[in-house]
Amino acid sequence: MENYNPTDRTRVRRLPKRAAYDKQKVHSILDEGFLCHVGFVADGQPYVIPTLYARGGDRIYIHGSAASRMLRTLDEGVDVCLTVTLVDGFVLARSAFHHSMNYRSVVVLGKARLVTDSAEKMEAMHRFTNHMVPGRWEEVRQPTEQELKATSVLALELHEVSAKIRTGSPLDDEEDYSLPVWAGVVPVRTTLGEPLPDERVLPAVKVFDVHRLANRH
Amino acid sequence: MENYNPTDRTRVRRLPKRAAYDKQKVHSILDEGFLCHVGFVADGQPYVIPTLYARGGDRIYIHGSAASRMLRTLDEGVDVCLTVTLVDGFVLARSAFHHSMNYRSVVVLGKARLVTDSAEKMEAMHRFTNHMVPGRWEEVRQPTEQELKATSVLALELHEVSAKIRTGSPLDDEEDYSLPVWAGVVPVRTTLGEPLPDERVLPAVKVFDVHRLANRH
Repeated sequence: MENYNPTDRTRVRRLPKRAAYDKQKVHSILDEGFLCHVGFVADGQPYVIPTLYARGGDRIYIHGSAASRMLRTLDEGVDVCLTVTLVDGFVLARSAFHHSMNYRSVVVLGKARLVTDSAEKMEAMHRFTNHMVPGRWEEVRQPTEQELKATSVLALELHEVSAKIRTGSPLDDEEDYSLPVWAGVVPVRTTLGEPLPDERVLPAVKVFDVHRLANRH
Repeated sequence: MENYNPTDRTRVRRLPKRAAYDKQKVHSILDEGFLCHVGFVADGQPYVIPTLYARGGDRIYIHGSAASRMLRTLDEGVDVCLTVTLVDGFVLARSAFHHSMNYRSVVVLGKARLVTDSAEKMEAMHRFTNHMVPGRWEEVRQPTEQELKATSVLALELHEVSAKIRTGSPLDDEEDYSLPVWAGVVPVRTTLGEPLPDERVLPAVKVFDVHRLANRH
């Protein structure tokens, strides 16, 4: 299985047994998530902005519009950290100290590059749209030249990447197992509700099938 | 209603009508969430680390252990950006361009301070535990002096704070409303699964009531 090479900056030091560098695992986390938190520095101050993203091979596209402050600092690329976290459960131990969370996270370090080429921007928007809802791009109106101009897109190569994963039961101190306290995992899931059409959907249009999003979760 | 004063760094510039600065709204987002993404700078590189947090009044406590790299840079406080994002829905428009997300997010800027006082550390762990599960602190073994020493806690004052909120239907271009495309919102929710006890829960212990977490979601 192919791996990302950990660097001094991406090697997981704390609890290294939770670390993963293999591409398949990293990609599966990135493909299941849809929200990332992008960190960048402006005037010495770190900022962390939530935004949508999509992956294409070893590249991530992010909506730059959510980070206009970042774009102002962008010249030949801006140093960013892009983090995606999927929460899988609350881990309830017998002691306060051992409470934890089951999760899968990916951290990507690198220089984000402003996408200026129209065709690549179109490609990125295609991926954003179909990452949210598979097949959506093919049924909606696609971007005009003007809309492409109005959209800021950043590209970030998957090169310096690590994943961190915690699974399973709490790990209590041996003597605490005799305590009469419930301990285990409460699963946390991202679920979808009943689709709510807006007021102007045409009468002939079929109800949106929420199962179309099941493939992505 | 009391407000946080927006500064040059926290005033929402893009889509300012989505901004909120009132304390009640900010606190309700922070109290509903449980995972934050903390950004900090080390050797010029931004890092974004997911970690648990809890609020006490106008102060946020975070588990510093998740960011040992940050702690190494900590002296008289480290500049951080703490972001909490709650996703409420996928917003499906009739054009790719107007696809969006309903969300509520809070961004806090400030200097995080390492908590060294034992009593304050205990207070923070109390809040972490009961923020995850109301009443949990009172039923588990509380931290020993040694565990307190082994726990890194950071405190961040809520001072430079802003919230950003998107709600409601997609906003399509007028001419696109005639397209035969379903449009609206697919709600996204965080839900809890059936609690899974670990293998060593004592027979007399009652099944964990997942509704105890309902108050927090």
